[in-house]
Amino acid sequence: MTKTLNGIAASDGIAVAPAYLLVEPDLSFSKTTISDVDAEVARFQKAVKDSTEEVEAIRDTAKKTLGEEESQVFDAHLMILNDPEFTGAIENEIKNSKINGEAALDATAQNFIAIFEGMTDNPYMQERAADVRDVSKRIMAHLQNKELPNPSTIDHEVIVVAHDLTPSDTAQLNKKFVKGFITDIGGRTAHSAIMARSLELPAVVGTETITSDVKNGQTLVVDGLNGDAVIDPTDAQVADYQAKSEAFLKQKAEWQKLKDQPSVTADGKKFLIAANIGTPNDMEGVKANGAEAVGLYRTEFLYMDSKDFPSEDDQFEAYKAVIEGMDGKPVVIRTMDIGGDKHLDYWDLPDEMNPFLGVRAIRLSLKNKEIFRTQLRALLRASAYGKLCIMFPMIGTLDELHQAKALLKEVHDELTKEGVKIGDYQVGMMIEVPAAAILADQFAKEVDFFSIGTNDLIQYTMAADRGNDNVSYLYQPYNPSVLRLIKHTIDSAHKAGIWVGMCGEAAGDSTMFPILLSMGLDEYSMSATSILRIRSEMKKINTKDLEGLADKAINESTTNEDNEKLVADFMAKYSK
Amino acid sequence: MTKTLNGIAASDGIAVAPAYLLVEPDLSFSKTTISDVDAEVARFQKAVKDSTEEVEAIRDTAKKTLGEEESQVFDAHLMILNDPEFTGAIENEIKNSKINGEAALDATAQNFIAIFEGMTDNPYMQERAADVRDVSKRIMAHLQNKELPNPSTIDHEVIVVAHDLTPSDTAQLNKKFVKGFITDIGGRTAHSAIMARSLELPAVVGTETITSDVKNGQTLVVDGLNGDAVIDPTDAQVADYQAKSEAFLKQKAEWQKLKDQPSVTADGKKFLIAANIGTPNDMEGVKANGAEAVGLYRTEFLYMDSKDFPSEDDQFEAYKAVIEGMDGKPVVIRTMDIGGDKHLDYWDLPDEMNPFLGVRAIRLSLKNKEIFRTQLRALLRASAYGKLCIMFPMIGTLDELHQAKALLKEVHDELTKEGVKIGDYQVGMMIEVPAAAILADQFAKEVDFFSIGTNDLIQYTMAADRGNDNVSYLYQPYNPSVLRLIKHTIDSAHKAGIWVGMCGEAAGDSTMFPILLSMGLDEYSMSATSILRIRSEMKKINTKDLEGLADKAINESTTNEDNEKLVADFMAKYSK
Repeated sequence: MTKTLNGIAASDGIAVAPAYLLVEPDLSFSKTTISDVDAEVARFQKAVKDSTEEVEAIRDTAKKTLGEEESQVFDAHLMILNDPEFTGAIENEIKNSKINGEAALDATAQNFIAIFEGMTDNPYMQERAADVRDVSKRIMAHLQNKELPNPSTIDHEVIVVAHDLTPSDTAQLNKKFVKGFITDIGGRTAHSAIMARSLELPAVVGTETITSDVKNGQTLVVDGLNGDAVIDPTDAQVADYQAKSEAFLKQKAEWQKLKDQPSVTADGKKFLIAANIGTPNDMEGVKANGAEAVGLYRTEFLYMDSKDFPSEDDQFEAYKAVIEGMDGKPVVIRTMDIGGDKHLDYWDLPDEMNPFLGVRAIRLSLKNKEIFRTQLRALLRASAYGKLCIMFPMIGTLDELHQAKALLKEVHDELTKEGVKIGDYQVGMMIEVPAAAILADQFAKEVDFFSIGTNDLIQYTMAADRGNDNVSYLYQPYNPSVLRLIKHTIDSAHKAGIWVGMCGEAAGDSTMFPILLSMGLDEYSMSATSILRIRSEMKKINTKDLEGLADKAINESTTNEDNEKLVADFMAKYSK
Repeated sequence: MTKTLNGIAASDGIAVAPAYLLVEPDLSFSKTTISDVDAEVARFQKAVKDSTEEVEAIRDTAKKTLGEEESQVFDAHLMILNDPEFTGAIENEIKNSKINGEAALDATAQNFIAIFEGMTDNPYMQERAADVRDVSKRIMAHLQNKELPNPSTIDHEVIVVAHDLTPSDTAQLNKKFVKGFITDIGGRTAHSAIMARSLELPAVVGTETITSDVKNGQTLVVDGLNGDAVIDPTDAQVADYQAKSEAFLKQKAEWQKLKDQPSVTADGKKFLIAANIGTPNDMEGVKANGAEAVGLYRTEFLYMDSKDFPSEDDQFEAYKAVIEGMDGKPVVIRTMDIGGDKHLDYWDLPDEMNPFLGVRAIRLSLKNKEIFRTQLRALLRASAYGKLCIMFPMIGTLDELHQAKALLKEVHDELTKEGVKIGDYQVGMMIEVPAAAILADQFAKEVDFFSIGTNDLIQYTMAADRGNDNVSYLYQPYNPSVLRLIKHTIDSAHKAGIWVGMCGEAAGDSTMFPILLSMGLDEYSMSATSILRIRSEMKKINTKDLEGLADKAINESTTNEDNEKLVADFMAKYSK
């Protein structure tokens, strides 16, 4: 029977395909004493044999669909399955302790994992711990007659359904066949949503119940434009969605023509549309979508994807790759925003009752000046390769800004003394703490640019955790209070003669965009895949029509909804 | 050797007396198997005998110093110590399980406590669980040759030293002999600090190390004016502090003369100085200090001090007691602010990653309308007995305010239909979410008054948890950003013709006060013990001198420190 779930539209586009459930079965077990030891060993050996056959099949498919390199991990799995040291140890444990195969497998696997992980001077052997974990999970599933999802064996078009999608889940997916994502949880800023946008796949997140509502193979529609997921659609619905999808793809093709064009309004006013990135790998999307700058390079991923603090040289190489990659276009690199919801395995920070109101970003950097200094050295060394803008996150007081600038100057002088070449660079700050937005006139005198971080600015202004579903109704980008802070920031920047950008999700939001344009925001930094859509909207708008829009949005409107209507009414004139 | 610790000045005054350490010893133990069962039973019996003698001595002292009623709890303890059902069960446990006395005591006590707590239809027996817990702790201490602090036996002047002070700790103290508090942790808004101000005892909190630095009986100075704790002061220091103390007491006596005088400036402008309270018991201090209103009654204590949701009648009685107690003077009662850092044992709310940015105060009330309705009914019933102002906490959007007002109207109509008498009352809101301060002009059209809650407004504006020591440097009451929000709130209220007060700690702060006065704040609500000091400062100030002070504070000043200096310079003219 047809059923429609309403979630959050996380990535544009529409697709129709069978569901593929990426849901791990419950593999918990009880430890029991067994009497017939031989039967139990036989049961275990059967599970190993079935696992081996399954992995061989997966490897063969993976070799065809993903390529030689991606399939090698399964050869490693087969080596473990065929290793008598591993399987023999489990059989002995069954015999000696007279316990069930599940308990023997678990105990032995834990031992092997601990030994491998302990080989800290041998990274190759350390990585084998993950293989033991994967293989044990597979044997455990066979012991319990349960089926593991095998995303790498996908050989036909599917829509992936999951409770949530982690980076390692998505790494295993054969993107050729994946037509969209639908998840139970998450919002527009969740990993799964960001991943879907970067892969240009339609996605709906936060449906709450999709994993229990749909079965493997049932037909699904994912409508990432409206946030709908339809299970078992009628033929009429399928036809309707396919027509919508074609219209969307046609529109995308239109947008694609804007790739090498400047970002201008209908009356010829120029602005800058930039891309947000997390790693140098994202540069491909930046170029494919015609970004005129990198408006935000989130350097914390460099720390999070690493097993220890990245060295000055490693950081330098990453920053240089992005700066050089932009061929003289501006690159805004934000110093690390660790803390809050972002933690490092190798940096033990105190637990906090309210981490979003705790020691994060610049606060952490200023308390750990040696770590900060390494990053600043790498940044200044990279400045010689293009147009670098260094940006400090979470600045709340002038004192913090002065401290950060003083350290930057110290590092600059030190490098100059060492004879290192340093290019021209700008120094700016995020506007995301309400105090900084309110005092933007004072801060504007001390920096070369601002970039407004709406994700945090909204959560602090509304006093509502952006990750807490129970207060998500208070996460209101168009609330007049938020818009007043944004307008004050833009006015203050312009009065001081500096440029101001926005690098929160709101910069690529179609409702926010006309308001920002009417306020005169200079730079709009967003997911690369949003750039051409916003560039196309910019082309429609005549800035003369915008007069008074910002004033209405902050004075006449009193709610988030008022402003949604205000913009819808405003844009209606262009769709006639 | 003399040692001075620097903490936070939490309550005015200076005292010199020996230290009394209110620190619980570590009573953890290992469960061991014993061979000589008879010796272990004898060891346990000796601990019971020693405990009995100790409790008898405590009871006798308590009877003399605290009175008959307060000493009765110790009679209950003696009954348990002499109860063969209790001690016999422990002896049997030692004999049968061959385990040490500590383990037998712990197991048996847990059983008794569980049984007593299970008697949900017999509150008297339920309360015995606490007695069993206290008695077992005492026997456990004797088994381990450790000394428990016995605050009720204090029979000479002392300064109480503790890691932190809980409400039950302070209930046991003989206030006649306690001359001050010094603690390791806490800030000006901690329970220990609020308690000290309500008892008018000097207190220094947040010294970090006082409990390990001082020994029982060492001489201590507590300087609650400057936040210093001096261990083993020199004779010269003692003389110096005693002189300062006398000067302070003389000043307090001067202040006392202002008790029945109005709050006026040197040039005769009238304002309102009000008191913050937590329970009807605080009314004594409210009257003794000449409060002209109750500016904030925190009703959440009614819920926190209760074993289940307080009934409509219980709430009505509490609200009526305060309203009647004020003899027609205004009483601002804030609806419950549960959530955040305030939890109820009987209300299981979901854990939140950032509770200060989560479901608290009005957000929780609007999600639980039946609980909220009960409070609103009790408030409206109490309105007939004086001048009630109902205040909603944590309002962030107009939609929340509309919902709260709609429910209040529903309840009003319902009570009218029931024939219940309702008095005139005002409806107002806290300004503590930045969004509400920024849109104060819009909110002002929909309420009768504002009250600015600085504690939360500061923490959200600066994005710094007020309970997190690692970001306490960012909790800046005089930061120009915070002052701009306060000024906008006051200006907006006056433009709309409504009154505006402040009920955060900042209202009673000597540095903040002249700035607020220059902004024209109407009502100043603070700890009762701060009222006469602020009234005396008000008398010194000529409002004509204030011209331009607020503008300087929000435009010329750029930091918290700038404003401390600005006010110090301003007030200097009055001390000539």
